Amino acid sequence: MYKLILIRHGQSEWNLSNQFTGWTDVDLTPQGIEEAKQAGRILRDSDLDIRYTYTSYLKRAIKTLNYVLEEMDRLWLPVYKTWRLNEKHYGALQGQNKKEAVSVYGEEQVNKWRRSYDVEPEPLADDDPRHPKFDIRYQDIKFKAARPATESLMDATKRIIPLWNVNIVESLRQYKQVLVVAHGNSIRGIIKFMKNMSNEDIVKLNIPTGVPYLMELDNEMQVISDHYMGLSEEELKAKQEGVANQTKA
Amino acid sequence: MYKLILIRHGQSEWNLSNQFTGWTDVDLTPQGIEEAKQAGRILRDSDLDIRYTYTSYLKRAIKTLNYVLEEMDRLWLPVYKTWRLNEKHYGALQGQNKKEAVSVYGEEQVNKWRRSYDVEPEPLADDDPRHPKFDIRYQDIKFKAARPATESLMDATKRIIPLWNVNIVESLRQYKQVLVVAHGNSIRGIIKFMKNMSNEDIVKLNIPTGVPYLMELDNEMQVISDHYMGLSEEELKAKQEGVANQTKA
Repeated sequence: MYKLILIRHGQSEWNLSNQFTGWTDVDLTPQGIEEAKQAGRILRDSDLDIRYTYTSYLKRAIKTLNYVLEEMDRLWLPVYKTWRLNEKHYGALQGQNKKEAVSVYGEEQVNKWRRSYDVEPEPLADDDPRHPKFDIRYQDIKFKAARPATESLMDATKRIIPLWNVNIVESLRQYKQVLVVAHGNSIRGIIKFMKNMSNEDIVKLNIPTGVPYLMELDNEMQVISDHYMGLSEEELKAKQEGVANQTKA
Repeated sequence: MYKLILIRHGQSEWNLSNQFTGWTDVDLTPQGIEEAKQAGRILRDSDLDIRYTYTSYLKRAIKTLNYVLEEMDRLWLPVYKTWRLNEKHYGALQGQNKKEAVSVYGEEQVNKWRRSYDVEPEPLADDDPRHPKFDIRYQDIKFKAARPATESLMDATKRIIPLWNVNIVESLRQYKQVLVVAHGNSIRGIIKFMKNMSNEDIVKLNIPTGVPYLMELDNEMQVISDHYMGLSEEELKAKQEGVANQTKA
């Protein structure tokens, strides 16, 4: 049996200030660091034996992984960093406060940008200095999808699936237990694909920060069981509602 | 022109308590963390453009690299971790205070263990729980050299040379500028090989903690120039003498 563990990064500075983040490379807050360490302790105290790890090109995920590995006393594990696990790009919305966006565009439109499967926010202008084509980390990557001006959840899922099909499946075959530390929407992309969820269902899935989510897989890489680790039902529900309510007045 | 930057990890807990460390996985001290960050700031403020990194399986090196990358704002760089960059294994001496060892075995013998090229300290007993064969991180590696009971500097150099010849040279060709964060003796092994130094000269080379050492290489990977970065001659000399004097009464 194979085990895939997914963790959304701990609280970031823009989670706290309630701004659309996307590919903006913001840091963890002190609470986010504590969430990351807590996730590491949950994994350390479990009977898991994780041997390989993945994360994105964004520091809130990379640092979460580093804190998790340190608490597990497994800093020596290999880490594969990839732009394919980056958060969904939020286009011109990046940096905007979520409630301000509601007062400008209306709740319906903002929720469409946040939660519809195939609607993209307005793109960044081609000469916007925040455009990924000006960021050194994406310049040499041969895939144009590594330099998006905006993305729908569908776009993000499309760039994540090859990572699953090639790299993660191969790592699972070799290492049996694999940890992925990523972002709300890149984790949605993985879960949608693995559980064959509909476009409607996936957007309703709210993923709490810093809680290990364990998927057990059979030899065909089909999901046998999946559950969050280390939190009571109540704690989990409170965390998920916090994510869902970010645009409420 | 290719650039290879070597950094010895910041001060560790056993550097501070003056114990033989080897493969013991001790943490950085607060001063060690500060040294690592300082090295990161020196690289950040230089005109280098590092694109690939290497470190050992030991947390004092891995954490040093993580602090360096964070200060450089390049946490997204690939990191290749390998047992081949581990410190020289100090056998049964691991854990012993260096001055105590001098009072037990005499200064001449201890300096032979520390600084001769081909003399190994007494090995760990085959059933010693500290033996690398009992450590999960070395169990699945197909090379027996990954589970030593003791090592001379020659033994350590022998396991490092394949890493240079295959991996690091290839990374330099692809990425042009490569950073290696490792240990006093694994860095000695690299420098000896690259500068073709004699067995006598290499053991006299004292490498300060947390100071970037820049080697510029031509197209045949021959050293054109090499120097420490960011420290005055006096600061550098004081740091190097600190290392040389660890066994002095």
